[in-house]
Amino acid sequence: MKLVKVYVTLKDSVLDAQGEAIKSAINTMGYNQLTGVHMGKYFELNFSEDYENLEHDVDAICDELLANPNIETYHYEITEEA
Amino acid sequence: MKLVKVYVTLKDSVLDAQGEAIKSAINTMGYNQLTGVHMGKYFELNFSEDYENLEHDVDAICDELLANPNIETYHYEITEEA
Repeated sequence: MKLVKVYVTLKDSVLDAQGEAIKSAINTMGYNQLTGVHMGKYFELNFSEDYENLEHDVDAICDELLANPNIETYHYEITEEA
Repeated sequence: MKLVKVYVTLKDSVLDAQGEAIKSAINTMGYNQLTGVHMGKYFELNFSEDYENLEHDVDAICDELLANPNIETYHYEITEEA
């Protein structure tokens, strides 16, 4: 059993309006040491078994479904499921 | 400079409808080894400096703003910013 953790975030060149709004809200709460917030999406994919092309397939799933390659970037970790 | 990576996911007892829909979509794409998907939110918080109560403050920020404690759970890692 493999667990793939995928993180999708906006490219640095794209304005992260949600992140900016959250940063303002947190600063308003009084936490002034906070200097920046980026918001993204997090996916956990469970695979029944390891196989040779797993990494290739995860790339394809991210490119075609989970991330918008125009404005988002992603990275992932493949781990053994506990 | 500290970078805090926060992961917010639905509690196990809450139906993850988005995750189920994504799982179906990926299976339809032909990746049948995929057995489950969970979707969540990912936040990167930048702090200007480390300080004694950082962990306490991150807990408060998660409880009061980033996660809905009724249906979501969160965990985080505090790292040195590169």
